[in-house]
Amino acid sequence: MSRILYSLCGADSERPFSPHCWKVVMALDHKGLEFTELPGPFTAIPSLENGFSKTVPVLRDGDLLVRDSFDIALYLEEAYPDRPSLFGGEGGKALARFVEGFSQTVLHPAITKMALLSIHGMLADKDQAYFRASREARFGKTLEEVAAEAEAEKAAFPAKVEPLRHMLKFQPYFGGETPLFADYIVFGAFQWGRITAGLSLFAEDDPVGHWFDRCLDLFNARGRTVTPA
Amino acid sequence: MSRILYSLCGADSERPFSPHCWKVVMALDHKGLEFTELPGPFTAIPSLENGFSKTVPVLRDGDLLVRDSFDIALYLEEAYPDRPSLFGGEGGKALARFVEGFSQTVLHPAITKMALLSIHGMLADKDQAYFRASREARFGKTLEEVAAEAEAEKAAFPAKVEPLRHMLKFQPYFGGETPLFADYIVFGAFQWGRITAGLSLFAEDDPVGHWFDRCLDLFNARGRTVTPA
Repeated sequence: MSRILYSLCGADSERPFSPHCWKVVMALDHKGLEFTELPGPFTAIPSLENGFSKTVPVLRDGDLLVRDSFDIALYLEEAYPDRPSLFGGEGGKALARFVEGFSQTVLHPAITKMALLSIHGMLADKDQAYFRASREARFGKTLEEVAAEAEAEKAAFPAKVEPLRHMLKFQPYFGGETPLFADYIVFGAFQWGRITAGLSLFAEDDPVGHWFDRCLDLFNARGRTVTPA
Repeated sequence: MSRILYSLCGADSERPFSPHCWKVVMALDHKGLEFTELPGPFTAIPSLENGFSKTVPVLRDGDLLVRDSFDIALYLEEAYPDRPSLFGGEGGKALARFVEGFSQTVLHPAITKMALLSIHGMLADKDQAYFRASREARFGKTLEEVAAEAEAEKAAFPAKVEPLRHMLKFQPYFGGETPLFADYIVFGAFQWGRITAGLSLFAEDDPVGHWFDRCLDLFNARGRTVTPA
């Protein structure tokens, strides 16, 4: 098969956890495209495909290489127009950038604090050293100091997804009656927290948790093939 | 003319301020549809069109009455399909609900605290009594107690629009190269704060402020026909 998704894992290659790679897994399934996922550790990324990208996901589709989850989704929409749409038109494509903005600036910073130390624990020695150095430089704090904020973040998290609760009063998915790439953007964030830190962020009766469950069930429960930490 | 938009004002009918009514003004302009705006005070709403709605906006389009800003936009899209689209397809329609969720649950609570006392000050006596009683019951606080949080809300506000800043790195509007109803949803919230409390929420170099300026300039600068408080 000529379609390869390079993704991210720790010491256990059966547990790929990157939120951005999960977006692409779901996008490929949504399009009904077969692919081989090749998860690798942080420190292997720079040598993938002759140094094509500093980050994963990277998609090889035959002779073509594409990087960045949103750009990959745009590529798939363009290259496979007869498969189910990931955006539902130009308006959906544009507004998906706002959903990405919400995920990157509201969800990711919170989940990072909750999951950082668990992610570190999943990595092989060499990657632990890279991860600790790069993340401590980014935060200006030790991983342990960041993790000390985890409980406060957990308590604050349900309020941060109020915009989803409002939306879910009207429809079961970001995409309306069926999911779109915007769903996979936010799914990726929650799945990242679930796999790395076993985060269960929602009360039993929370519509946001029900939405996440629906996403985990998509494509023969692809999301459940990796169990919670 | 048979198209009437019932909207909201205080003692001065030249200063309609409701965020939801502004969404509809922009949507009607976007569709290039002429209309007469009839702003009225809070206490007049229950008797509009024989008690058709407890809230404005209400749109009369010939023999038809429609209420709720989102429902009005859906109606306009359906009734005037040959005019410029407000949603850019089914995906854009679905994702606009998430933008509404963000506006209602993140922006509105913050702007409410910043503008509540100023709104009260714009109203005629009878409406002031209604407004104070209903809002104090809703908040469980006096208007003055809510307003005491205004400065803290102002300081916290720039961080709340980070999702917009991310999006604006890629495109000038929620809708992409040109605005859609999703733009007017958030525009309505900022315009409400601008008209009632003169809120100027963004630093000069903030892309979010630049986006708001672009929205104020749309349709012969319709948004600027009402000056800041």
